[in-house]
Amino acid sequence: MEVKVVKDILSANDRIARRNQRLLDEHGILTINIMSAPGAGKTSLILQTITKLKQKARIGVIEGDVASTIDANKVHEQGVAAVQINTAGGCHLDANMIESALNNLPLGDIDLLLIENVGNLICPAEFALGEHKRVMLLSLPEGDDKPYKYPLMFTEADVVLINKIDLLPYLEFNTAAFHKAVTGLNPTAKILPVSCKTGEGLEDWFSWLLDAIGEIKRGGSIAC
Amino acid sequence: MEVKVVKDILSANDRIARRNQRLLDEHGILTINIMSAPGAGKTSLILQTITKLKQKARIGVIEGDVASTIDANKVHEQGVAAVQINTAGGCHLDANMIESALNNLPLGDIDLLLIENVGNLICPAEFALGEHKRVMLLSLPEGDDKPYKYPLMFTEADVVLINKIDLLPYLEFNTAAFHKAVTGLNPTAKILPVSCKTGEGLEDWFSWLLDAIGEIKRGGSIAC
Repeated sequence: MEVKVVKDILSANDRIARRNQRLLDEHGILTINIMSAPGAGKTSLILQTITKLKQKARIGVIEGDVASTIDANKVHEQGVAAVQINTAGGCHLDANMIESALNNLPLGDIDLLLIENVGNLICPAEFALGEHKRVMLLSLPEGDDKPYKYPLMFTEADVVLINKIDLLPYLEFNTAAFHKAVTGLNPTAKILPVSCKTGEGLEDWFSWLLDAIGEIKRGGSIAC
Repeated sequence: MEVKVVKDILSANDRIARRNQRLLDEHGILTINIMSAPGAGKTSLILQTITKLKQKARIGVIEGDVASTIDANKVHEQGVAAVQINTAGGCHLDANMIESALNNLPLGDIDLLLIENVGNLICPAEFALGEHKRVMLLSLPEGDDKPYKYPLMFTEADVVLINKIDLLPYLEFNTAAFHKAVTGLNPTAKILPVSCKTGEGLEDWFSWLLDAIGEIKRGGSIAC
Protein backbone atom coordinates (compact mmCIF):
# COMPACT_ATOMS: atom_id res chain seq x y z
CA MET A 1 0.00 0.00 0.00
CA GLU A 2 2.73 2.41 0.98
CA VAL A 3 4.80 1.42 -2.05
CA LYS A 4 1.85 2.17 -4.29
CA VAL A 5 1.62 5.72 -2.94
CA VAL A 6 5.30 6.27 -3.58
CA LYS A 7 4.92 5.03 -7.14
CA ASP A 8 1.97 7.35 -7.71
CA ILE A 9 3.99 10.31 -6.48
CA LEU A 10 6.94 9.39 -8.67
CA SER A 11 4.76 8.86 -11.71
CA ALA A 12 3.02 12.24 -11.22
CA ASN A 13 6.47 13.78 -10.81
CA ASP A 14 7.67 12.16 -14.04
CA ARG A 15 4.74 13.60 -15.99
CA ILE A 16 5.62 17.12 -14.87
CA ALA A 17 9.32 16.46 -15.48
CA ARG A 18 8.57 15.50 -19.09
CA ARG A 19 6.54 18.71 -19.48
CA ASN A 20 9.48 20.71 -18.10
CA GLN A 21 11.85 19.01 -20.49
CA ARG A 22 9.68 19.77 -23.52
CA LEU A 23 9.65 23.44 -22.51
CA LEU A 24 13.43 23.43 -22.07
CA ASP A 25 13.92 21.68 -25.42
CA GLU A 26 11.71 24.25 -27.17
CA HIS A 27 14.00 26.97 -25.85
CA GLY A 28 17.19 25.01 -26.54
CA ILE A 29 18.27 25.22 -22.89
CA LEU A 30 20.72 22.56 -21.72
CA THR A 31 19.61 21.74 -18.19
CA ILE A 32 21.86 20.10 -15.60
CA ASN A 33 20.70 18.69 -12.26
CA ILE A 34 23.64 19.01 -9.84
CA MET A 35 23.44 16.75 -6.79
CA SER A 36 25.74 16.10 -3.83
CA ALA A 37 25.95 15.76 -0.07
CA PRO A 38 25.91 18.99 1.98
CA GLY A 39 29.05 21.04 1.58
CA ALA A 40 30.55 19.05 -1.31
CA GLY A 41 30.92 22.21 -3.39
CA LYS A 42 27.86 22.54 -5.65
CA THR A 43 27.71 26.32 -5.28
CA SER A 44 31.46 26.68 -5.82
CA LEU A 45 31.18 24.61 -9.00
CA ILE A 46 28.34 26.81 -10.23
CA LEU A 47 30.25 30.01 -9.45
CA GLN A 48 33.38 28.73 -11.23
CA THR A 49 31.25 27.71 -14.22
CA ILE A 50 29.61 31.13 -14.41
CA THR A 51 32.99 32.89 -14.25
CA LYS A 52 34.48 30.74 -16.99
CA LEU A 53 31.53 30.29 -19.36
CA LYS A 54 29.45 33.44 -19.07
CA GLN A 55 31.09 34.90 -22.18
CA LYS A 56 30.28 31.73 -24.13
CA ALA A 57 26.77 30.88 -22.91
CA ARG A 58 23.88 32.67 -21.25
CA ILE A 59 23.50 30.97 -17.87
CA GLY A 60 20.53 30.66 -15.50
CA VAL A 61 20.53 29.04 -12.07
CA ILE A 62 17.89 27.44 -9.87
CA GLU A 63 19.06 27.10 -6.28
CA GLY A 64 17.41 24.48 -4.06
CA ASP A 65 17.81 24.63 -0.29
CA VAL A 66 15.91 23.56 2.79
CA ALA A 67 16.20 27.14 4.06
CA SER A 68 18.10 30.42 3.44
CA THR A 69 18.95 32.32 0.25
CA ILE A 70 22.74 32.28 0.77
CA ASP A 71 23.50 30.44 -2.47
CA ALA A 72 21.09 32.35 -4.72
CA ASN A 73 22.55 35.61 -3.43
CA LYS A 74 26.08 34.49 -4.32
CA VAL A 75 24.94 33.55 -7.83
CA HIS A 76 22.90 36.72 -8.29
CA GLU A 77 26.01 38.80 -7.45
CA GLN A 78 27.58 37.31 -10.59
CA GLY A 79 24.90 38.99 -12.69
CA VAL A 80 23.15 35.75 -13.58
CA ALA A 81 19.40 35.03 -13.58
CA ALA A 82 18.76 33.04 -10.41
CA VAL A 83 15.70 31.65 -8.65
CA GLN A 84 15.81 30.24 -5.12
CA ILE A 85 13.53 27.37 -4.15
CA ASN A 86 13.23 26.82 -0.41
CA THR A 87 11.76 23.39 0.25
CA ALA A 88 10.76 24.24 3.86
CA GLY A 89 12.17 21.00 5.23
CA GLY A 90 11.79 18.91 2.08
CA CYS A 91 14.87 16.86 1.30
CA HIS A 92 14.86 17.11 -2.51
CA LEU A 93 13.64 19.21 -5.41
CA ASP A 94 10.76 17.86 -7.49
CA ALA A 95 9.48 18.60 -10.98
CA ASN A 96 6.63 20.72 -9.68
CA MET A 97 9.03 23.09 -7.92
CA ILE A 98 11.11 23.37 -11.09
CA GLU A 99 7.98 24.14 -13.14
CA SER A 100 7.30 27.11 -10.84
CA ALA A 101 10.89 28.24 -11.06
CA LEU A 102 10.85 28.06 -14.89
CA ASN A 103 7.87 30.42 -14.85
CA ASN A 104 10.14 32.93 -13.13
CA LEU A 105 13.14 32.71 -15.44
CA PRO A 106 13.70 34.51 -18.78
CA LEU A 107 13.80 31.28 -20.82
CA GLY A 108 14.42 33.09 -24.09
CA ASP A 109 17.71 34.42 -22.72
CA ILE A 110 19.24 31.20 -21.33
CA ASP A 111 21.45 28.58 -23.01
CA LEU A 112 22.53 26.69 -19.90
CA LEU A 113 20.38 26.12 -16.82
CA LEU A 114 22.18 24.82 -13.73
CA ILE A 115 19.94 23.38 -11.01
CA GLU A 116 21.54 23.03 -7.59
CA ASN A 117 19.58 20.33 -5.82
CA VAL A 118 19.20 20.10 -2.02
CA GLY A 119 22.37 18.73 -0.35
CA ASN A 120 21.44 15.07 0.03
CA LEU A 121 22.81 11.86 -1.52
CA ILE A 122 19.54 9.94 -1.31
CA CYS A 123 16.14 11.27 -2.43
CA PRO A 124 17.22 13.78 -5.12
CA ALA A 125 18.26 10.82 -7.31
CA GLU A 126 14.66 9.54 -7.29
CA PHE A 127 13.01 12.70 -8.62
CA ALA A 128 13.42 13.68 -12.27
CA LEU A 129 13.16 17.44 -12.74
CA GLY A 130 13.14 17.69 -16.51
CA GLU A 131 16.93 17.93 -16.74
CA HIS A 132 18.97 16.63 -19.68
CA LYS A 133 21.94 15.50 -17.62
CA ARG A 134 22.63 14.56 -14.02
CA VAL A 135 25.87 15.54 -12.37
CA MET A 136 26.95 14.13 -9.03
CA LEU A 137 29.60 15.82 -6.98
CA LEU A 138 31.54 13.78 -4.45
CA SER A 139 33.77 15.70 -2.11
CA LEU A 140 37.04 13.87 -1.47
CA PRO A 141 36.76 14.06 2.36
CA GLU A 142 33.51 12.05 2.18
CA GLY A 143 35.54 8.93 1.42
CA ASP A 144 35.88 6.40 -1.39
CA ASP A 145 33.17 4.04 -0.07
CA LYS A 146 30.21 6.29 -0.89
CA PRO A 147 29.11 4.46 -4.09
CA TYR A 148 28.40 1.37 -1.97
CA LYS A 149 26.37 3.36 0.53
CA TYR A 150 24.41 5.59 -1.85
CA PRO A 151 24.24 3.43 -4.99
CA LEU A 152 21.25 5.05 -6.72
CA MET A 153 22.91 8.47 -6.85
CA PHE A 154 25.99 7.04 -8.55
CA THR A 155 23.93 4.83 -10.87
CA GLU A 156 21.88 7.78 -12.13
CA ALA A 157 24.74 10.22 -12.76
CA ASP A 158 26.00 11.07 -16.25
CA VAL A 159 29.05 12.78 -14.75
CA VAL A 160 30.67 12.17 -11.37
CA LEU A 161 32.92 15.04 -10.30
CA ILE A 162 35.42 14.28 -7.52
CA ASN A 163 35.81 17.69 -5.89
CA LYS A 164 38.41 19.03 -3.40
CA ILE A 165 41.26 17.02 -4.91
CA ASP A 166 43.60 19.68 -3.48
CA LEU A 167 43.03 17.88 -0.16
CA LEU A 168 44.29 14.52 -1.47
CA PRO A 169 47.70 14.76 0.29
CA TYR A 170 45.95 15.06 3.68
CA LEU A 171 43.36 12.29 3.32
CA GLU A 172 43.15 8.56 2.86
CA PHE A 173 41.20 8.30 -0.39
CA ASN A 174 41.76 5.39 -2.76
CA THR A 175 41.05 6.84 -6.20
CA ALA A 176 41.33 3.47 -7.98
CA ALA A 177 38.88 1.86 -5.55
CA PHE A 178 36.46 4.74 -6.05
CA HIS A 179 36.61 4.43 -9.86
CA LYS A 180 36.03 0.70 -9.59
CA ALA A 181 33.00 1.22 -7.33
CA VAL A 182 31.45 3.86 -9.62
CA THR A 183 31.99 1.99 -12.89
CA GLY A 184 30.66 -1.20 -11.27
CA LEU A 185 27.34 0.59 -10.80
CA ASN A 186 27.49 2.79 -13.87
CA PRO A 187 29.95 1.77 -16.61
CA THR A 188 29.32 4.85 -18.79
CA ALA A 189 29.66 7.51 -16.09
CA LYS A 190 32.27 10.15 -16.86
CA ILE A 191 34.48 10.62 -13.79
CA LEU A 192 36.33 13.93 -13.52
CA PRO A 193 38.63 14.85 -10.61
CA VAL A 194 38.50 18.62 -9.95
CA SER A 195 39.20 21.29 -7.39
CA CYS A 196 36.74 24.18 -7.38
CA LYS A 197 39.21 25.95 -5.08
CA THR A 198 42.36 25.77 -7.24
CA GLY A 199 40.62 25.28 -10.61
CA GLU A 200 42.49 22.02 -11.27
CA GLY A 201 40.66 19.70 -13.67
CA LEU A 202 37.80 22.13 -14.36
CA GLU A 203 38.74 22.54 -18.04
CA ASP A 204 37.42 19.02 -18.71
CA TRP A 205 34.14 19.96 -17.03
CA PHE A 206 33.81 23.14 -19.08
CA SER A 207 34.54 21.23 -22.31
CA TRP A 208 31.94 18.62 -21.48
CA LEU A 209 29.36 21.36 -20.79
CA LEU A 210 30.13 23.26 -24.02
CA ASP A 211 29.84 20.04 -26.05
CA ALA A 212 26.47 19.28 -24.45
CA ILE A 213 25.23 22.84 -25.11
CA GLY A 214 26.27 22.44 -28.75
CA GLU A 215 24.38 19.18 -28.99
CA ILE A 216 21.18 20.78 -27.68
CA LYS A 217 21.54 23.74 -30.03
CA ARG A 218 21.95 21.42 -33.02
CA GLY A 219 18.47 20.24 -32.18
CA GLY A 220 16.91 17.34 -30.40
CA SER A 221 16.80 16.47 -26.76
CA ILE A 222 19.74 14.62 -25.16
CA ALA A 223 17.68 13.53 -22.24
CA CYS A 224 19.10 11.04 -19.81
CA MET B 1 -4.26 17.49 3.43
CA GLU B 2 -0.67 16.56 2.75
CA VAL B 3 0.49 18.28 5.94
CA LYS B 4 -2.03 16.27 7.92
CA VAL B 5 -0.60 13.01 6.60
CA VAL B 6 2.91 14.06 7.57
CA LYS B 7 1.73 14.93 11.07
CA ASP B 8 0.03 11.55 11.40
CA ILE B 9 3.22 9.76 10.40
CA LEU B 10 5.28 11.79 12.84
CA SER B 11 2.83 11.25 15.67
CA ALA B 12 2.74 7.47 15.07
CA ASN B 13 6.54 7.55 15.03
CA ASP B 14 6.63 9.44 18.32
CA ARG B 15 4.42 6.84 20.02
CA ILE B 16 6.83 4.07 19.05
CA ALA B 17 9.81 6.23 20.00
CA ARG B 18 8.39 6.69 23.51
CA ARG B 19 7.89 2.92 23.79
CA ASN B 20 11.51 2.39 22.72
CA GLN B 21 12.69 4.89 25.28
CA ARG B 22 10.78 3.22 28.12
CA LEU B 23 12.42 -0.09 27.19
CA LEU B 24 15.86 1.54 27.10
CA ASP B 25 15.23 3.25 30.45
CA GLU B 26 14.17 -0.05 32.03
CA HIS B 27 17.52 -1.50 31.00
CA GLY B 28 19.49 1.62 31.96
CA ILE B 29 20.89 1.98 28.44
CA LEU B 30 22.06 5.45 27.46
CA THR B 31 21.06 5.79 23.81
CA ILE B 32 22.62 8.29 21.43
CA ASN B 33 21.31 9.15 17.95
CA ILE B 34 24.32 10.18 15.85
CA MET B 35 23.46 12.20 12.75
CA SER B 36 25.53 13.83 10.00
CA ALA B 37 25.94 14.32 6.28
CA PRO B 38 27.48 11.44 4.30
CA GLY B 39 31.15 10.89 5.06
CA ALA B 40 31.36 13.27 8.03
CA GLY B 41 32.84 10.54 10.22
CA LYS B 42 30.02 8.88 12.18
CA THR B 43 31.53 5.40 11.87
CA SER B 44 35.00 6.68 12.77
CA LEU B 45 33.55 8.36 15.86
CA ILE B 46 31.82 5.12 16.87
CA LEU B 47 34.99 3.07 16.34
CA GLN B 48 37.07 5.53 18.39
CA THR B 49 34.43 5.47 21.13
CA ILE B 50 34.42 1.67 21.24
CA THR B 51 38.23 1.54 21.45
CA LYS B 52 38.37 4.05 24.27
CA LEU B 53 35.30 3.14 26.33
CA LYS B 54 34.80 -0.59 25.91
CA GLN B 55 36.61 -1.26 29.20
CA LYS B 56 34.32 1.20 31.00
CA ALA B 57 30.93 0.50 29.41
CA ARG B 58 29.27 -2.31 27.50
CA ILE B 59 28.53 -0.87 24.09
CA GLY B 60 25.97 -1.80 21.44
CA VAL B 61 25.61 -0.26 17.99
CA ILE B 62 22.75 0.10 15.49
CA GLU B 63 24.01 1.00 12.02
CA GLY B 64 21.62 2.73 9.62
CA ASP B 65 22.39 2.83 5.91
CA VAL B 66 20.53 3.05 2.62
CA ALA B 67 22.45 -0.03 1.47
CA SER B 68 25.49 -2.20 2.36
CA THR B 69 26.77 -3.63 5.65
CA ILE B 70 30.20 -1.97 5.49
CA ASP B 71 29.78 -0.06 8.75
CA ALA B 72 28.21 -2.86 10.80
CA ASN B 73 31.05 -5.16 9.73
CA LYS B 74 33.65 -2.64 10.93
CA VAL B 75 31.89 -2.35 14.29
CA HIS B 76 31.37 -6.10 14.62
CA GLU B 77 35.13 -6.63 14.14
CA GLN B 78 35.60 -4.70 17.39
CA GLY B 79 33.70 -7.40 19.27
CA VAL B 80 30.67 -5.23 19.91
CA ALA B 81 27.00 -6.20 19.50
CA ALA B 82 25.88 -4.59 16.24
CA VAL B 83 22.71 -4.60 14.15
CA GLN B 84 22.56 -3.20 10.63
CA ILE B 85 19.37 -1.55 9.39
CA ASN B 86 19.21 -1.12 5.62
CA THR B 87 16.48 1.36 4.74
CA ALA B 88 16.30 0.25 1.07
CA GLY B 89 16.31 3.80 -0.22
CA GLY B 90 14.75 5.48 2.81
CA CYS B 91 16.58 8.63 3.85
CA HIS B 92 16.32 8.32 7.66
CA LEU B 93 15.83 5.84 10.46
CA ASP B 94 12.48 5.77 12.22
CA ALA B 95 11.29 4.47 15.59
CA ASN B 96 9.76 1.37 14.06
CA MET B 97 13.11 0.28 12.58
CA ILE B 98 14.78 0.84 15.94
CA GLU B 99 12.12 -1.24 17.71
CA SER B 100 12.98 -4.17 15.40
CA ALA B 101 16.69 -3.65 16.00
CA LEU B 102 16.20 -3.59 19.80
CA ASN B 103 14.54 -7.01 19.54
CA ASN B 104 17.82 -8.26 18.09
CA LEU B 105 20.21 -6.82 20.67
CA PRO B 106 21.14 -8.28 24.10
CA LEU B 107 19.66 -5.35 26.06
CA GLY B 108 20.67 -6.80 29.43
CA ASP B 109 24.32 -6.56 28.41
CA ILE B 110 24.46 -2.98 27.11
CA ASP B 111 25.17 0.30 28.93
CA LEU B 112 25.62 2.54 25.91
CA LEU B 113 23.76 2.20 22.62
CA LEU B 114 25.11 4.21 19.70
CA ILE B 115 22.76 4.61 16.75
CA GLU B 116 24.37 5.69 13.49
CA ASN B 117 21.62 7.34 11.47
CA VAL B 118 21.55 7.49 7.67
CA GLY B 119 23.97 10.10 6.28
CA ASN B 120 21.61 13.03 5.71
CA LEU B 121 21.31 16.48 7.33
CA ILE B 122 17.57 16.81 6.76
CA CYS B 123 14.97 14.14 7.56
CA PRO B 124 16.75 12.27 10.40
CA ALA B 125 16.21 15.34 12.62
CA GLU B 126 12.43 14.95 12.24
CA PHE B 127 12.17 11.36 13.45
CA ALA B 128 12.61 10.57 17.14
CA LEU B 129 13.94 7.03 17.65
CA GLY B 130 13.66 6.73 21.43
CA GLU B 131 17.15 8.12 22.01
CA HIS B 132 18.16 10.10 25.11
CA LYS B 133 20.54 12.44 23.34
CA ARG B 134 21.10 13.67 19.80
CA VAL B 135 24.59 14.20 18.51
CA MET B 136 25.28 16.00 15.26
CA LEU B 137 28.60 15.67 13.52
CA LEU B 138 29.71 18.40 11.14
CA SER B 139 32.77 17.67 9.08
CA LEU B 140 34.99 20.73 8.71
CA PRO B 141 35.18 20.53 4.87
CA GLU B 142 31.38 20.95 4.69
CA GLY B 143 31.80 24.62 5.59
CA ASP B 144 30.74 27.00 8.35
CA ASP B 145 27.42 28.00 6.73
CA LYS B 146 25.64 24.68 7.29
CA PRO B 147 23.57 25.79 10.34
CA TYR B 148 21.82 28.33 8.10
CA LYS B 149 21.07 25.71 5.45
CA TYR B 150 20.04 22.81 7.69
CA PRO B 151 18.66 24.62 10.74
CA LEU B 152 16.50 21.84 12.21
CA MET B 153 19.44 19.45 12.58
CA PHE B 154 21.44 22.02 14.53
CA THR B 155 18.42 23.10 16.59
CA GLU B 156 17.71 19.53 17.72
CA ALA B 157 21.27 18.53 18.67
CA ASP B 158 22.43 18.21 22.28
CA VAL B 159 26.04 18.00 21.13
CA VAL B 160 27.56 19.35 17.91
CA LEU B 161 30.91 17.74 17.12
CA ILE B 162 33.11 19.54 14.58
CA ASN B 163 35.07 16.66 13.06
CA LYS B 164 38.22 16.60 10.88
CA ILE B 165 39.79 19.61 12.61
CA ASP B 166 43.17 18.22 11.48
CA LEU B 167 42.22 19.69 8.06
CA LEU B 168 41.79 23.23 9.43
CA PRO B 169 45.12 24.51 8.00
CA TYR B 170 44.00 23.57 4.49
CA LEU B 171 40.45 24.96 4.53
CA GLU B 172 38.61 28.23 4.88
CA PHE B 173 36.44 27.56 7.92
CA ASN B 174 35.46 30.39 10.25
CA THR B 175 35.11 28.70 13.65
CA ALA B 176 33.75 31.83 15.38
CA ALA B 177 31.10 32.28 12.68
CA PHE B 178 30.10 28.63 13.01
CA HIS B 179 29.75 28.90 16.81
CA LYS B 180 27.64 32.03 16.41
CA ALA B 181 25.36 30.31 13.87
CA VAL B 182 24.87 27.22 16.06
CA THR B 183 24.25 29.07 19.32
CA GLY B 184 21.85 31.42 17.51
CA LEU B 185 19.68 28.37 16.77
CA ASN B 186 20.46 26.38 19.88
CA PRO B 187 21.97 28.30 22.81
CA THR B 188 22.51 25.22 25.00
CA ALA B 189 24.21 23.02 22.40
CA LYS B 190 27.61 21.73 23.48
CA ILE B 191 30.10 22.32 20.64
CA LEU B 192 33.20 20.11 20.63
CA PRO B 193 35.94 20.32 17.97
CA VAL B 194 37.49 16.88 17.39
CA SER B 195 39.51 14.80 14.97
CA CYS B 196 38.53 11.15 14.78
CA LYS B 197 41.74 10.65 12.77
CA THR B 198 44.26 12.12 15.24
CA GLY B 199 42.18 11.75 18.41
CA GLU B 200 42.41 15.48 19.18
CA GLY B 201 39.52 16.72 21.32
CA LEU B 202 37.93 13.30 21.80
CA GLU B 203 38.62 13.27 25.56
CA ASP B 204 35.83 15.86 26.01
CA TRP B 205 33.46 13.64 24.03
CA PHE B 206 34.32 10.58 26.11
CA SER B 207 33.84 12.55 29.37
CA TRP B 208 30.47 13.82 28.21
CA LEU B 209 29.39 10.25 27.36
CA LEU B 210 30.57 8.79 30.69
CA ASP B 211 28.75 11.54 32.60
CA ALA B 212 25.56 10.81 30.66
CA ILE B 213 25.89 7.05 31.26
CA GLY B 214 26.31 7.78 34.99
CA GLU B 215 23.19 9.91 34.98
CA ILE B 216 21.13 7.11 33.38
CA LYS B 217 22.50 4.54 35.83
CA ARG B 218 21.58 6.73 38.81
CA GLY B 219 18.03 6.35 37.59
CA GLY B 220 15.57 8.35 35.62
CA SER B 221 15.45 9.20 31.98
CA ILE B 222 17.43 12.16 30.65
CA ALA B 223 15.38 12.31 27.51
CA CYS B 224 15.87 15.24 25.20
